[in-house]
Amino acid sequence: MTLGELGEFALIERITAGLGASGPVVLGVGDDCAVLRLAGDLAVSTDTMVEDVHFRRDWSSAHDVGRKAVASCVADAEAMGAVPIGLVVSLAAPPSTPAEWAEQFAAGVREECANAGVQLVGGDTTSAAQIVITATVLADLGGLAPLTRGGARPGQVLAMAGRLGWAAAGVAVLGRGFRSPRAVVVAHRVPEPPYGQGREAAEAGASALIDVSDGLLADLGHIARASGVVLDVDTSALEVAEPQKAVAAAIGGGDPLVFQLTGGDDHALVGAFEPDRVPAGWRVIGRVLTGDPQVLVDGKPWDGPSAGWQHFSP
Amino acid sequence: MTLGELGEFALIERITAGLGASGPVVLGVGDDCAVLRLAGDLAVSTDTMVEDVHFRRDWSSAHDVGRKAVASCVADAEAMGAVPIGLVVSLAAPPSTPAEWAEQFAAGVREECANAGVQLVGGDTTSAAQIVITATVLADLGGLAPLTRGGARPGQVLAMAGRLGWAAAGVAVLGRGFRSPRAVVVAHRVPEPPYGQGREAAEAGASALIDVSDGLLADLGHIARASGVVLDVDTSALEVAEPQKAVAAAIGGGDPLVFQLTGGDDHALVGAFEPDRVPAGWRVIGRVLTGDPQVLVDGKPWDGPSAGWQHFSP
Repeated sequence: MTLGELGEFALIERITAGLGASGPVVLGVGDDCAVLRLAGDLAVSTDTMVEDVHFRRDWSSAHDVGRKAVASCVADAEAMGAVPIGLVVSLAAPPSTPAEWAEQFAAGVREECANAGVQLVGGDTTSAAQIVITATVLADLGGLAPLTRGGARPGQVLAMAGRLGWAAAGVAVLGRGFRSPRAVVVAHRVPEPPYGQGREAAEAGASALIDVSDGLLADLGHIARASGVVLDVDTSALEVAEPQKAVAAAIGGGDPLVFQLTGGDDHALVGAFEPDRVPAGWRVIGRVLTGDPQVLVDGKPWDGPSAGWQHFSP
Repeated sequence: MTLGELGEFALIERITAGLGASGPVVLGVGDDCAVLRLAGDLAVSTDTMVEDVHFRRDWSSAHDVGRKAVASCVADAEAMGAVPIGLVVSLAAPPSTPAEWAEQFAAGVREECANAGVQLVGGDTTSAAQIVITATVLADLGGLAPLTRGGARPGQVLAMAGRLGWAAAGVAVLGRGFRSPRAVVVAHRVPEPPYGQGREAAEAGASALIDVSDGLLADLGHIARASGVVLDVDTSALEVAEPQKAVAAAIGGGDPLVFQLTGGDDHALVGAFEPDRVPAGWRVIGRVLTGDPQVLVDGKPWDGPSAGWQHFSP
């Protein structure tokens, strides 16, 4: 059965079946708006994923895509030091899409919402030529100030939670027609942001935080410019995993550090901390220095492949 | 110049130039999240518009599309009795789209945000095969309970603010290749929700409220079912405007009441009030009765053309 045969209202019924409202959610799906009760200020961010731009149906299952839509969006709330509580998701899809795809997508959304501790509180469905998914996260700052990109101060250390370079290694092998090493392929399909660690950082007094979606150097560049500081990454502190080395070796003798420094989409959190207040489980990977805003790698500008990803580019 | 030539970051820079943060907006665009300070509970809703499904580039200017994306989304917050304060907007568009289109779209978004009293606080841009826009509104209930669809009680009256049937009449003429009467064509391009009237209704003690996006009968059906009541619409109280009569007469002797009763997309507000507490400027259009949930027209079931609009349908 296709979405066209199922119809919009039946799809919504299937997607939302059994969804309730508890804790901070005063009113869940089914009315003009959902209603949430927050203890502090609201942090909000929106994120769009497009078929054949951000995912391919032959590389990722519908369940994977649903999980990724939630994970990549919630990571932005983690990056403010907020507690994510609610999510709304819009699904635009061709009428020819199998209804099964939409249901598996919804199951993935709901599974990752549970992983992230957020409730699915609303959404929209409509037809389109291509699958386009937009998720918006609602998060509670609960009395703390937001961790912006502008708060890094010389003398602090850079520390990170989560992992780097896995999804990029996955895209590298998938793009060459391989399906292994499986760990990096899975990492491309479903990122694993370090849920809860954004709040840990805020409570530990971090003064700047970002999630790594475009690549470590690109995203640290945002902190460097917004804070007016130099950030120096110590590559000996980065954890290059075996599958990344294997992929780098297999693909033209590449340097696995490129994945670590320029690969996006793993949604690690990285921020600036006082040296004696780095939370347990966070890895110190560099220092905040004075000077014209820039990001250094082992004290020098990075001259490897460029980091980051621009949409609309040829 | 196309979006592909301009690039994603340059587009974002143009769209967000000069945007600030004031009042309830603690932090505007430019970080991982925006931050808003609310006095009461948060009401949130998301709305997606797709090219050639919800709008056509040959029928509506980019500026119109931007305004409509804001208006149709903000109307959902009005329909909860909340004060809309912030909006995030995602724009997916083909790289071949003229950069001018995106800039005019953004100008329309910003103009309608000003009309609605909300601030644009964030968004996302990406490439796609087709233009897909998702807006999410953030609104403040400020100490009042949300006006759901489930609060209508027998003995109350139905009252509405805003207008009905204009956009549907506009689609009827555009679909037949005409561009007049201009008033209805303009109404299709840019709805005019009665901004601020949702809050007026809440303060007047309304107990149920909805915005008319699918058609009066379809949307009253939601209230009837959620409240477990009969709603009886008095057609003599509806205001059929001259352009609607002209369109109905020109197109096969149609009844202009069909536009009023089944036409969506004008985003009037309609709700249930105590008879002596209908706010100034609201029009009483019917009554709330006991009985098996249904919507009546002048005491009888409606047997004209069916109301509502389902996506994915053939």
